[in-house]
Amino acid sequence: MVDKKINNSSDYRNSLRQFHLNLYAFGEKIENVVDHPLLKPHINAVAATYDLSNDPEFEDLANAKSHLTGRSISRFNHIHQNRDDLIKKVKMLRMLNQRTACCIQRCAGMDSANAAYSVTYEIDKKYGTKYHERFKDFLQEVQEKNLVVIGAMTDPKGDRSKPPHQQADPDLYLHVVEERKDGIVVRGAKAHLTGVTSAHYVLVFPTSSMRAEDKDYAVCFAMPVDTPGMTYIFGRQTNDLRKMEEGEIDKGNAQYAMVGGECLAVFEDVFVPWERVFMHKEYDFAGMFVERFAAAHRQNYGACKGGISDVLIGACALLAEYNGVANASHIRDKLVEMVHLTETLYSGSIACSHEGHCTASGAWETDILLANCTKQNTTRMVYEIGRLAHDIAGGLLATLPSEKDYRHPQLGKYIDKYLKGVDNIPTESRMRIFRLIEAITGGTAVVEAMHGAGPPQTQRVFMLRQANLSHKIKLAKKIAGIKDQ
Amino acid sequence: MVDKKINNSSDYRNSLRQFHLNLYAFGEKIENVVDHPLLKPHINAVAATYDLSNDPEFEDLANAKSHLTGRSISRFNHIHQNRDDLIKKVKMLRMLNQRTACCIQRCAGMDSANAAYSVTYEIDKKYGTKYHERFKDFLQEVQEKNLVVIGAMTDPKGDRSKPPHQQADPDLYLHVVEERKDGIVVRGAKAHLTGVTSAHYVLVFPTSSMRAEDKDYAVCFAMPVDTPGMTYIFGRQTNDLRKMEEGEIDKGNAQYAMVGGECLAVFEDVFVPWERVFMHKEYDFAGMFVERFAAAHRQNYGACKGGISDVLIGACALLAEYNGVANASHIRDKLVEMVHLTETLYSGSIACSHEGHCTASGAWETDILLANCTKQNTTRMVYEIGRLAHDIAGGLLATLPSEKDYRHPQLGKYIDKYLKGVDNIPTESRMRIFRLIEAITGGTAVVEAMHGAGPPQTQRVFMLRQANLSHKIKLAKKIAGIKDQ
Amino acid sequence: MVDKKINNSSDYRNSLRQFHLNLYAFGEKIENVVDHPLLKPHINAVAATYDLSNDPEFEDLANAKSHLTGRSISRFNHIHQNRDDLIKKVKMLRMLNQRTACCIQRCAGMDSANAAYSVTYEIDKKYGTKYHERFKDFLQEVQEKNLVVIGAMTDPKGDRSKPPHQQADPDLYLHVVEERKDGIVVRGAKAHLTGVTSAHYVLVFPTSSMRAEDKDYAVCFAMPVDTPGMTYIFGRQTNDLRKMEEGEIDKGNAQYAMVGGECLAVFEDVFVPWERVFMHKEYDFAGMFVERFAAAHRQNYGACKGGISDVLIGACALLAEYNGVANASHIRDKLVEMVHLTETLYSGSIACSHEGHCTASGAWETDILLANCTKQNTTRMVYEIGRLAHDIAGGLLATLPSEKDYRHPQLGKYIDKYLKGVDNIPTESRMRIFRLIEAITGGTAVVEAMHGAGPPQTQRVFMLRQANLSHKIKLAKKIAGIKDQ
Amino acid sequence: MVDKKINNSSDYRNSLRQFHLNLYAFGEKIENVVDHPLLKPHINAVAATYDLSNDPEFEDLANAKSHLTGRSISRFNHIHQNRDDLIKKVKMLRMLNQRTACCIQRCAGMDSANAAYSVTYEIDKKYGTKYHERFKDFLQEVQEKNLVVIGAMTDPKGDRSKPPHQQADPDLYLHVVEERKDGIVVRGAKAHLTGVTSAHYVLVFPTSSMRAEDKDYAVCFAMPVDTPGMTYIFGRQTNDLRKMEEGEIDKGNAQYAMVGGECLAVFEDVFVPWERVFMHKEYDFAGMFVERFAAAHRQNYGACKGGISDVLIGACALLAEYNGVANASHIRDKLVEMVHLTETLYSGSIACSHEGHCTASGAWETDILLANCTKQNTTRMVYEIGRLAHDIAGGLLATLPSEKDYRHPQLGKYIDKYLKGVDNIPTESRMRIFRLIEAITGGTAVVEAMHGAGPPQTQRVFMLRQANLSHKIKLAKKIAGIKDQ
Repeated sequence: MVDKKINNSSDYRNSLRQFHLNLYAFGEKIENVVDHPLLKPHINAVAATYDLSNDPEFEDLANAKSHLTGRSISRFNHIHQNRDDLIKKVKMLRMLNQRTACCIQRCAGMDSANAAYSVTYEIDKKYGTKYHERFKDFLQEVQEKNLVVIGAMTDPKGDRSKPPHQQADPDLYLHVVEERKDGIVVRGAKAHLTGVTSAHYVLVFPTSSMRAEDKDYAVCFAMPVDTPGMTYIFGRQTNDLRKMEEGEIDKGNAQYAMVGGECLAVFEDVFVPWERVFMHKEYDFAGMFVERFAAAHRQNYGACKGGISDVLIGACALLAEYNGVANASHIRDKLVEMVHLTETLYSGSIACSHEGHCTASGAWETDILLANCTKQNTTRMVYEIGRLAHDIAGGLLATLPSEKDYRHPQLGKYIDKYLKGVDNIPTESRMRIFRLIEAITGGTAVVEAMHGAGPPQTQRVFMLRQANLSHKIKLAKKIAGIKDQ
Repeated sequence: MVDKKINNSSDYRNSLRQFHLNLYAFGEKIENVVDHPLLKPHINAVAATYDLSNDPEFEDLANAKSHLTGRSISRFNHIHQNRDDLIKKVKMLRMLNQRTACCIQRCAGMDSANAAYSVTYEIDKKYGTKYHERFKDFLQEVQEKNLVVIGAMTDPKGDRSKPPHQQADPDLYLHVVEERKDGIVVRGAKAHLTGVTSAHYVLVFPTSSMRAEDKDYAVCFAMPVDTPGMTYIFGRQTNDLRKMEEGEIDKGNAQYAMVGGECLAVFEDVFVPWERVFMHKEYDFAGMFVERFAAAHRQNYGACKGGISDVLIGACALLAEYNGVANASHIRDKLVEMVHLTETLYSGSIACSHEGHCTASGAWETDILLANCTKQNTTRMVYEIGRLAHDIAGGLLATLPSEKDYRHPQLGKYIDKYLKGVDNIPTESRMRIFRLIEAITGGTAVVEAMHGAGPPQTQRVFMLRQANLSHKIKLAKKIAGIKDQ
Repeated sequence: MVDKKINNSSDYRNSLRQFHLNLYAFGEKIENVVDHPLLKPHINAVAATYDLSNDPEFEDLANAKSHLTGRSISRFNHIHQNRDDLIKKVKMLRMLNQRTACCIQRCAGMDSANAAYSVTYEIDKKYGTKYHERFKDFLQEVQEKNLVVIGAMTDPKGDRSKPPHQQADPDLYLHVVEERKDGIVVRGAKAHLTGVTSAHYVLVFPTSSMRAEDKDYAVCFAMPVDTPGMTYIFGRQTNDLRKMEEGEIDKGNAQYAMVGGECLAVFEDVFVPWERVFMHKEYDFAGMFVERFAAAHRQNYGACKGGISDVLIGACALLAEYNGVANASHIRDKLVEMVHLTETLYSGSIACSHEGHCTASGAWETDILLANCTKQNTTRMVYEIGRLAHDIAGGLLATLPSEKDYRHPQLGKYIDKYLKGVDNIPTESRMRIFRLIEAITGGTAVVEAMHGAGPPQTQRVFMLRQANLSHKIKLAKKIAGIKDQ
Repeated sequence: MVDKKINNSSDYRNSLRQFHLNLYAFGEKIENVVDHPLLKPHINAVAATYDLSNDPEFEDLANAKSHLTGRSISRFNHIHQNRDDLIKKVKMLRMLNQRTACCIQRCAGMDSANAAYSVTYEIDKKYGTKYHERFKDFLQEVQEKNLVVIGAMTDPKGDRSKPPHQQADPDLYLHVVEERKDGIVVRGAKAHLTGVTSAHYVLVFPTSSMRAEDKDYAVCFAMPVDTPGMTYIFGRQTNDLRKMEEGEIDKGNAQYAMVGGECLAVFEDVFVPWERVFMHKEYDFAGMFVERFAAAHRQNYGACKGGISDVLIGACALLAEYNGVANASHIRDKLVEMVHLTETLYSGSIACSHEGHCTASGAWETDILLANCTKQNTTRMVYEIGRLAHDIAGGLLATLPSEKDYRHPQLGKYIDKYLKGVDNIPTESRMRIFRLIEAITGGTAVVEAMHGAGPPQTQRVFMLRQANLSHKIKLAKKIAGIKDQ
């Protein structure tokens, strides 16, 4: 584990070299995550968050004052203390995404830490356990050393029509298989782990509400990413092999990865000491954890996707200039529509933050109904924004030759000549913008807007639960003059 | 004019009896606006705002502390002093609409007063005029007497492809036709005057930005609603004649009017004394007035339409119960969708308020981009919410017999027997809900969501202007690695 | 009953005078349906179909050659003999709606007659009954005398979660209460009867598929509209009272009614002779009747709503000219969108007709999947077309003064002056177009697009049933290379 | 060139080996197109069309009777002789796409041949030229030898705000640079050439309507794909490098390519003999050629995208089974929606075919308005269908490990265990379906639905032109009772 505070992106990269991840991609073990071309753009994204903390312009957004120590810490490791913290979280995310156009990877860690903070408080209150203090100890280490924590939530789930204990294979949800004097042993897997190759710690927590029969599945704990027994398998991404090509045009976003670098994490009888266990068998709090984490996580989507959309809008406006159609009324109208949708997404994130409230633990929580509403909008509007970008871009988006062709002595001349737009713009600039639009709107990058922080239907379940239909029925009855019943 | 403070809805109704409006509807003069069945539901809506000010539960929302006098005043007459004022305005509107499901009519007055307050300050700063003090005097009277002010903005416009001074008839935009020692004389008309039959004062202001040639059209002033030379013609509304029928079922919302009671106001050489003139020939500030008023007014739509939607959702959920289909998955899904859209609208109003800022005058203004985005959403989502309500309601929405048939001794039995839903609910309750849904979703009530606070295209113009595309282009260039130019 | 052939609209109006409907509206009995201002515009619409049959330009669309007699008959009374008949039906409907912008009322009769024709054939084949011959006798009378038949399908249904025989009141679905030597006696009601005041005959049939327990509810028969025991209660429509006003501007469509003139029909122990009974207890054919009628009826919606949309598009294009904005790019774009949606609707009607097939009886039937798909589109696109019309029209759509104000000597001058658009167009023309748009897009007129021919969810049920998912699964398996299972 | 008739897919593959394409991809020359893993899946798609011609089940769809020779030919080389041909074309495309889920590549050739056939007829009629006979000679060779012809339309266009002759580089539109005794010499480029690696002939034609100044750009001709002077650069596709990987799972559709294999074709002073020139300087017919080709090509999109959607619907339904959620109401509802949209697309193709008409040449043409409407719908609905597929699929769509991981002895066991769905289904089957959904919905595959056959705005231009607004205005005036003007 990291032994001293990480002060900048250089420290950060060095800190990762101390870990020995059991990580595979394309059937091969990756020994050096920091410099591997497949992973580097993911690590660059997190490194950007460290640089930002030291940038005076963004100091206030990127950092916060720890309520544990009073010292300045990364906002990603902060427990929100008031409404303003909720708002600043949102603004930090939009700003970061405007500068990277990629998944920042640290939100799930931040959001699950906030959920763990408030839920452990509530468990202790009911059961007299000591989870909250344990969690604060863990959190203080993270804050002080300035570490990256990621969240691990989604179990593989197997047959979705059955609860954990009824699965044909009991390991399809992660569970405790042994309780020892010094800790617990867990087995199972978590899917879609975002950012594990960029992280120091994983915070593991349940994927759904549970009943008594599933109590061994109600478990929350933290562990270093390279804990023995762990295996990580790196998921395929759209155009992932381009990351390993020379050149940078075809990558679209050469510096940063478009998605979080999700892994399948396999826990083969992994030992976790008691001081890192924050829930164990309190199945009646699994649902609360999920609800609080989900709301906090869904709060983000109008901001991070909004930030990426800002870049996409800029790319489309620029390409329209390159194509000589910047003043065409239908192009302007589509740009306005992209702006409109982007600001609608962002409004959701701001509104749910403003309407937040304080939990019993003192940690602030976003408004659950509005946060779910925000995420639901991203599952639609990000797709529509992408569709409009495709419309504006034109067909070359799908037929542009490769950078290798462009660098070829003879072909390059043809491409330079024939793929030129307006006269004064280098063809290469035009190609770069096509590739950026392709990268932002293609495949895994948009699926993230759909399924990140949970699929659309889960938001609808939460919205129905929060909608207070009976109050609305009373309002309607009063106005309709219905007095009976 | 009103000579003492209005303390409650009874005072309010009495105060209106002192005015002698030159008002027509269906070709006839209406002498008594307070008790005429066509107007009563409109006056009831404003009366509700007075009752609310005295309701301890809503005291904080409905009232504010005047920055002029330090005394408690109606929030509708308040100049927003901080972010919290912007937020409370929004919450007041949703709450009021949840309780009346109608147009409250006082927003345009509130919003134009706030615009006049800050714009007069800017005019004075540039030209050394004294409009701001004049306006404060006027405002203080309004606050102290607790009066209702409405706004008058929209000129008839004639040929929309031409500016004011090029119209075939110069009166198609309201303008100053004579400048006298004691004041000005104006001629022209304003369309869509909301709430004039419920008001004491009208605040008149320009409808668009202007150039030097149009300077006589750049005029802002206040006047009592019954100023000599004024004629008001009450517009037709969907099912307006039902208001004059006996019974209450067919009205849907028997107590409150669904729309603002819009009039065409004709100004036939109307005299306005200088102390009530707040802009005169400063054409370069017409655009600023429009922008500020429009933003303030568009801020409201997610809240007031959100409040009405709450009632509509309640009505649909109740009707689904009456029909025995409350648990059908497609019905629940449509209700969730209505909730989702409603909260998206509301999020816009909250977000633009939160992101508001202070103007030079000290008055707070909502975020212009987000406010326009909010209004734009109402022009789509209110229609979709209405469509979903029609879907849930079923065909009887369009074929239900009249209350007169229901009250008929023989027919009534048939209706009672055959239009029953689930067994334990009176048929009359079911009919009332159908009529309420009809009233909220039909005709003029939804057109208001489209054109109130300006047609959709005007919001797009503002959004494009506010979108800062050049900044977004810079973001895109940086990420795409485009260094030249 | 009518004793000789109806040759034109004058004959038609006279024929209606021979009927003595037991009809009520607003709690009063209407003795003379032909001349009552509430009903006249409905009768005008059907009269237009008679005129059309005699118009050489439309002869081929409006008439067909009877397969029973070989003589030329109204297409509305025709049994479709081939694909071309299905297509011509669709073209006749669009053309009629382009000329009336209203509900033609005769489709449900045409569609239920076609369903009855083919289903009676199938019942006879299974049970050896004689329904088909009976039905042909009835049909031949209708064809020869050139009568108007309407369909009666929708039972009141009470608690929608229960089948007919489980309703608290057994009459909530129409059923046979007595079987006599000479016929049957039925009791119950049918809702949403379109066009009964314009018709000679009603064809009554079941509203849903049924099981053995509901066999008394499986009944189909024809009867004259003025059969003893019948009571009709005329449903309220949006702005219905304007039909009784003087003048014509405010009606929007002064000559034709916007909707079908739906009634609640009460059957109080009504006797039907055996020769007019076409189904009795064959509950296993109720579902087939519904499916065939529904498909035939849903086929129409892209055509009739398409025809009305043509008028609406024309009205909006004209108003844009009157407003001086016909060349504004956003206006043109909205008109194109209206055209696009209208032609998408129409394409559905053409496609399901083209893909039709011959039933065992020899009658041709539309493609069920595509017909349901067509209707589903109208439940969305008609609303969107209306929304676009509101957008183009502008706010006067909701605030225009009444015709009475316009006819008032003093007010009229103001309205004429101030509601003028471009210079050379009379204000009255502009007012007429606003009112036409209002009439087409408001209230009951659009609810018809939602619930006519069944609510949206019923189309989804049919689409799922027709989708042949297992075939599609096979296609996917083959391409994915899945060989097992 | 091919010297004898191609009878089956084996002949076809052999025929391609005789060509020597000057083709590049990733900066390298590809010598053997038939066996190169990048191109093989594209050639397989065209090969499937040959197999189909010999399949008795599809004989009638896949073949037609030549009007030139009376012999049976591939429908792809047929000139439509009647409405039925237009319909069969559509049905052939849906069927082919259901079996390959890929771009068939031969439509643009078929559609441009039909356009050339009818337009050369019209040119000859006006100018007395001999293009039509020449074209028939060419066509007969193609039909008799059963060759593959592709179309080449889109010029690079440079600055879109300028016509061809005003471009800074005159070669940005393809043009005639020399007129010789035996033929013409052309220079320029065509973008987005679909299927050139699978073809024998290219048919080149103009990209837009033209004026006199652009007459050298008004040129249409045919040439073998390996004509001297030609260079083809193969465009990048989403996940193109996966085609070169071992294994087949990660390809999604291992046998067929998802897109057409578009190339940038550079014409460096290419000679074309007169007998293959079908337009030369008749600029006034360029617009007609574009309109006719575009309508014919847009006709296809509801069919080919409909066929792919059928596969996608099947994949989603199957995955829902694998996930144990096939009966969840929200899943079923989304499947119905996908079906609904697919059939709406298909209805457009059927309808524009049914409403087709005969041109002066005797060739049948689809309805232009409805064909454009059909294509416009694909630019929206294909995206929405894809979005729904992402929703149903779940997050693994974006995080699934690679096939190499799955084949790895240790990792494979983990993946097998943890990515299992319901108990009885092999994990590999589930992975294959995820990959198929990914392939159909990602990147270049959907951009094709947007920009193939022209970007959305071009369809709107055609729709406005075809909408006959003045007729619609007349209809509205009549109903509104406007008699003047």
